Amino acid sequence: VSETLADVGEFGLIHRIRRLLEMRGAVGTGLIFGAGDDTAAMTPRAGHDILVTCDAMVEGRHFLGSLMSAREIGRRAMAVNISDIAAMGGAPRWALVSLGLDRDVPVRRILEHYKGMLDELNPLNAIVAGGNVTRSGNGMFIDITLIGEVERGRMIKRSGADPGDAILVTGWPGQATAGLELFLGDTDANEGMALPLIQAYKTPCHRVREGQALASTGLVNAMIDISDGFLGDLAHICEESRTGAEVMEDALPVSESLAWFAERVGRSPQDLVIRESDDYELMFTCAPMHVETLKSAVARVSEVPVTHVGWITDEPGGFYRIGADGARNELVLKGWDHFGERG
Amino acid sequence: VSETLADVGEFGLIHRIRRLLEMRGAVGTGLIFGAGDDTAAMTPRAGHDILVTCDAMVEGRHFLGSLMSAREIGRRAMAVNISDIAAMGGAPRWALVSLGLDRDVPVRRILEHYKGMLDELNPLNAIVAGGNVTRSGNGMFIDITLIGEVERGRMIKRSGADPGDAILVTGWPGQATAGLELFLGDTDANEGMALPLIQAYKTPCHRVREGQALASTGLVNAMIDISDGFLGDLAHICEESRTGAEVMEDALPVSESLAWFAERVGRSPQDLVIRESDDYELMFTCAPMHVETLKSAVARVSEVPVTHVGWITDEPGGFYRIGADGARNELVLKGWDHFGERG
Repeated sequence: VSETLADVGEFGLIHRIRRLLEMRGAVGTGLIFGAGDDTAAMTPRAGHDILVTCDAMVEGRHFLGSLMSAREIGRRAMAVNISDIAAMGGAPRWALVSLGLDRDVPVRRILEHYKGMLDELNPLNAIVAGGNVTRSGNGMFIDITLIGEVERGRMIKRSGADPGDAILVTGWPGQATAGLELFLGDTDANEGMALPLIQAYKTPCHRVREGQALASTGLVNAMIDISDGFLGDLAHICEESRTGAEVMEDALPVSESLAWFAERVGRSPQDLVIRESDDYELMFTCAPMHVETLKSAVARVSEVPVTHVGWITDEPGGFYRIGADGARNELVLKGWDHFGERG
Repeated sequence: VSETLADVGEFGLIHRIRRLLEMRGAVGTGLIFGAGDDTAAMTPRAGHDILVTCDAMVEGRHFLGSLMSAREIGRRAMAVNISDIAAMGGAPRWALVSLGLDRDVPVRRILEHYKGMLDELNPLNAIVAGGNVTRSGNGMFIDITLIGEVERGRMIKRSGADPGDAILVTGWPGQATAGLELFLGDTDANEGMALPLIQAYKTPCHRVREGQALASTGLVNAMIDISDGFLGDLAHICEESRTGAEVMEDALPVSESLAWFAERVGRSPQDLVIRESDDYELMFTCAPMHVETLKSAVARVSEVPVTHVGWITDEPGGFYRIGADGARNELVLKGWDHFGERG
């Protein structure tokens, strides 16, 4: 029988987490000390600004404890936060992990969550610097605060898009939602085409190396990660930049797997690319003359494709899709809202 | 009928929170931008280290939505985090607020939570720099990450206590638990003696000014806030410092209200002081020759009493109470454990 939280208690759990971190945690630079005190202390690098983001995942709402392994859940929770730092062009350095737990959760399972988080942090030389555990009422939550750094003057905001800018996106948006549908459906996940989609949902990739490469050029005007979906986050950029946008339907990147899925469910693959999906790709804008420079900057650090998908316009709140035939149709943005009827 | 979260949606709520913060939030220095992007960015002060702490409060577990006002809950959630920064001798600067919410919660109520947080932050010239809102499964949680700063070299850890050090404590520990018992019982809360105790529970004070004054002397060897109770946190100091401790029963600070409560429930007032209680006072140690200097340092910024309550010993894990008659009895530490049977 495996030990539960009720068996080992809060402090027993914290000891086990500390031991795991000492064994597996990358030793980052700049950390003064970690999980011993309630508060972690860090020395920021000279000439850098501090970035801070936090994102909570609630069991049953943002992840399915029954369908994903504990380690996958930990990876996912951390990747989502890394993606927010990536969108600013920063590098993650220290994570604080706050867990809300039921008494009967096995200790081994919690340590697996941590291993998943370290799977994401270690390659980036970032560490878990502290956190806490709390008894939750009903179901688990994982709330991660991730602290990163960016060279002063190199940070990229959402609000800098200019009319006439090209809109670019990394990777293959839309895959995660397709994966989730397959995952929840009766599909044989081992079917060749389904696998990349399910992987896209279960262990999403952040684009932090790509984001840093982009930031270092100084040529990106606005950037965001598309965790609210391609259109949802395009709308965020346009709202903060007081612009509109045109999306070139023909140019949208459709992966082979997504094309297979679209045919299977009888939907437009382009629609799947731009609607809600948890893909954590980066969307960014730049003056047209810099498109090739930015593609090259990413290509130097990553094999992820970068696609030019549209244009920023001077009509605030105007969103259009441009068809292969040149037809210009308004896009109705329903966005993504975790509390609304569609959430 | 008041608007709920389901009515306004996630983005509607975020807009309202931003508006509130713009109107009421202290404008801190060093913040580059706040709640617009998912990630907040800050410029750290030269020559300072960064402190980060996070603490989650779960409805029904750490607060009672039915008995405390939304504003009191917000204050409490923030004060608890400020206290962790205080224990390091730091100053809080930026808070990130992560809320887990049910769909039917009134928007007004959420804004009241924020007002309570600002009640605590504004006097310290600290701000809410960002955060997020998440739909929770069942019941609310408030998870706050608070970032502070401390002059490099001035930070105080738990682990620095030396045998022979005096142990000191601020304020009147034990009041919060007495207040909670009164609060949950059938007591008339307006009874004169009950009021300070109930206040101690509902709107606990942090000791951040006192902590900074202490840190600035450079004479404190170890410090902690006693959120796990007087004995629980004394044990943390001793564990990290590999020491033991003696508590002088006679010297323990017993407030007039706590003495009244102890008599009413037929318990030893000293026992109430040292057992579990959410008081957020500071406990610290120093060489005996510095006791008066440290009392004076606190007295210059605060009217909160500082009491010399015991001694650090060289017997790791040995905890004793010294009676008025000089009798030396071992203290059994049950500690505080949110998951254990007593949690």
